[in-house]
Amino acid sequence: MLINDLPRYEILDEAAMAELDRGWRRIVSELGIDFLYDEALDLFRAAGQQVDGQVVKFDPDWILEQVAKAPAEFDLQARNPAHNVHIGGNHMVFSAVYGCPFVREGIERRDATYADFQNLVRLAQSFPQLDSPGGTICEPNDTPLDSRHLDMVYALLTLSDKPFMGSVTSGPNAADTIAMAEIVFGRESLEETPAIISLINVNSPLRYDDRMLAALFEYARAGQPTVITPFLLMGAMSPVSIPATLAQQVAEALAGIALVQTIRPGCPVVFGSFLSNTDMQSGSPSFGTPESAVGLFCTGQIARHFKLPFRGGGALTSSQVVDAQAGYESMMSLWPTFLAGTNFVMHAAGWLESALVSCYEKMVVDVEMLRMLHEVFKPLQVTEETLAFSAHQEVGQGGHFLGAAHTLERFRECFYRPLVSSTENYERWNRNGGNDTAARASEIWRKMLDEYVEPPMEEDLKVELKGYVDRRRKELGD
Amino acid sequence: MLINDLPRYEILDEAAMAELDRGWRRIVSELGIDFLYDEALDLFRAAGQQVDGQVVKFDPDWILEQVAKAPAEFDLQARNPAHNVHIGGNHMVFSAVYGCPFVREGIERRDATYADFQNLVRLAQSFPQLDSPGGTICEPNDTPLDSRHLDMVYALLTLSDKPFMGSVTSGPNAADTIAMAEIVFGRESLEETPAIISLINVNSPLRYDDRMLAALFEYARAGQPTVITPFLLMGAMSPVSIPATLAQQVAEALAGIALVQTIRPGCPVVFGSFLSNTDMQSGSPSFGTPESAVGLFCTGQIARHFKLPFRGGGALTSSQVVDAQAGYESMMSLWPTFLAGTNFVMHAAGWLESALVSCYEKMVVDVEMLRMLHEVFKPLQVTEETLAFSAHQEVGQGGHFLGAAHTLERFRECFYRPLVSSTENYERWNRNGGNDTAARASEIWRKMLDEYVEPPMEEDLKVELKGYVDRRRKELGD
Repeated sequence: MLINDLPRYEILDEAAMAELDRGWRRIVSELGIDFLYDEALDLFRAAGQQVDGQVVKFDPDWILEQVAKAPAEFDLQARNPAHNVHIGGNHMVFSAVYGCPFVREGIERRDATYADFQNLVRLAQSFPQLDSPGGTICEPNDTPLDSRHLDMVYALLTLSDKPFMGSVTSGPNAADTIAMAEIVFGRESLEETPAIISLINVNSPLRYDDRMLAALFEYARAGQPTVITPFLLMGAMSPVSIPATLAQQVAEALAGIALVQTIRPGCPVVFGSFLSNTDMQSGSPSFGTPESAVGLFCTGQIARHFKLPFRGGGALTSSQVVDAQAGYESMMSLWPTFLAGTNFVMHAAGWLESALVSCYEKMVVDVEMLRMLHEVFKPLQVTEETLAFSAHQEVGQGGHFLGAAHTLERFRECFYRPLVSSTENYERWNRNGGNDTAARASEIWRKMLDEYVEPPMEEDLKVELKGYVDRRRKELGD
Repeated sequence: MLINDLPRYEILDEAAMAELDRGWRRIVSELGIDFLYDEALDLFRAAGQQVDGQVVKFDPDWILEQVAKAPAEFDLQARNPAHNVHIGGNHMVFSAVYGCPFVREGIERRDATYADFQNLVRLAQSFPQLDSPGGTICEPNDTPLDSRHLDMVYALLTLSDKPFMGSVTSGPNAADTIAMAEIVFGRESLEETPAIISLINVNSPLRYDDRMLAALFEYARAGQPTVITPFLLMGAMSPVSIPATLAQQVAEALAGIALVQTIRPGCPVVFGSFLSNTDMQSGSPSFGTPESAVGLFCTGQIARHFKLPFRGGGALTSSQVVDAQAGYESMMSLWPTFLAGTNFVMHAAGWLESALVSCYEKMVVDVEMLRMLHEVFKPLQVTEETLAFSAHQEVGQGGHFLGAAHTLERFRECFYRPLVSSTENYERWNRNGGNDTAARASEIWRKMLDEYVEPPMEEDLKVELKGYVDRRRKELGD
């Protein structure tokens, strides 16, 4: 968890903010949003909103009244209290890639398996820059579909002791997640401080589907935070305009957040953003784009305006391999992630190929970038001591600082030390195999996996958790 | 040339700025700076500064009086007026990599030649994102050392019609550069609006050497701008502390700028920064580091404080090849370059391996990054039109924007279009050869070189220029 005390980068003036305000109000009130879930429609109707079939037209001020009930910041507990995080304010929490059906390991691209899921969770546990393994770190395609969520939550709870993300594939799956968390944390503790954060995607444009809403209801009732995220690839799910997309994002996110507050006032919730654009030549989604960078600056500013913690960014790329494009596109999305002060960062490490692939090497490369940016976004201490006039006196004109006493006292800690980057001169680099970044990253994750130690869990607890998984799997017929 | 109207990212508060102010004043007044050039010492002595051997101890307020004579912004003319640039204010000018002894072309790394020099100048001429080919775009090792500067200036003046950088290897070489520019621009025109910008490196710490000073004198007398650049790799040429290095940078740069203003008051000059750090494990220079990013934010803020245009940043990396590290380190230095609003950006494209290598493929990759960042740093227009409510009305809930009228009217121009990045799906990408970014970049620069057209120059002028080169080469005994 980074406390980012550097300035926020904001590019919208008051007139622009006012224009966007008019934009989302018009969308929710004149067009309305589909909610494909009767319980949601009943709640909105009871609250005096205009429900016509599945379309809900809102009074924007009613939405804002509900949104005001959401906390601006909240705590999320981990199995290991040292890994508890705080979401909101100047805090930035980083979680791993989420939702990929494939994995890449070196030059091999294949269907992701449960073994991959476990290994990637182990790696996320091992890197201190990742505050959470996230949830679906890859899709374990070799496990039965109906009970897969049980296997994933079991791995997340046993192989890691960091906060985790819950299943959202259905209401019952969300209920299973909560039940398993109750076994580990206890119902009271969970009620007092949430331990599960879950991703609710909007079926954009302007539609929430039944499965996501069923999961949202489960988590909201249990007081567990959800990340309400319009899924916006401009040109496909939203207009080919950043301002239009921002207005849509506000409309969709605030409507969902209002629903959460109607279900359980005061329930923690995160304003989510997943905003990029379509490549209009290929029709493919495009990540790490200039448009998504601009969108992220604006999203941060907007979320702060509504006093909500927000999610966005990550180390995103469309690249098929861990090459230069993967590096620069990921930085293209990580820089604005930090500049915007993003509170909850999904996909912070491991994302490749527009999120089709969870990549082992990319995870290492992304962690390097996170480490570098953690270093940048620390306030600079300008003091008599750091001015180090004595070092200038010591070395004088035309001298060299490498052997200076001032340097020797500090050389171990004075600068960032890379994880995978190389500064070796060409001859030495060549002698050492001439490995590019991806090849060096491969060595690193293998070593980390070798050195991984499972975080301790009481045996009784583990048996109980396993018993729950086995029982439910049987009930689900797998 | 980009006009960057987005906000500057500034991280120093008033107390920090005041501390840095104390820092540089103490260095120039108590330690002093070496000037290995009698004419400089004479001028300083005449101006009442304390000269002891080669060390000059300054009255900081006298330095500030001189610095105040330098213009905050100035024009630089190009052979083609459409390529004139403005240096200072919100303007950002980008020039190519500078000073590398080697080139890389695909997997081949070799001594750079004059043919490489010419080809790289042609490429810099071809990319609209590069405002200047710079100067020593690579070192033409196969030309005679004494007259090499003539060949370089000839290529810069004939193969490109953008502004260029002059020779600084000696006073006479600078005089040759000016004489050749006079042939092309005319003495009066050159006097009215400068056409040569040249890099004067400080021999840090706290020393200006005789060759650089001789060149500085030539350019200052001719009213041509120089970029006065402390050469600071922390741990080698400055203390292992960012604030100490910033104080040293101010001390060194302002002393040189004061000298320029003493030679010719009002002569345009640029506050230069080349600030990175040593990898304390290998002792190698390290580029695209967190420390250099922080240094760049501060440098921008400091230069604006002194009302001087400034140079910094670029697409820097220590990587040996065009891989993920090359991508993310270059972005690590390009993002702060833009955020700081850097007025003159050297090494904006083509830099590899800590500036030992000018790389063809890297130039293409860097131009892609420049294109993307040009797009980010444009103000966002939030208006009734860009809110595009009609598009939302048209598509409605659960629809798709790809076929919408609003999209069809705009799809060609609505988003950034990549130069080398790929969004192809995996199958298609594989079918097309499965080429990584570097391989695709290779195709692009070859095609651009094929399509290059030499910018027109009157034959008489070319002959006169060539005559000058031949005559001077003979005089120099090559």
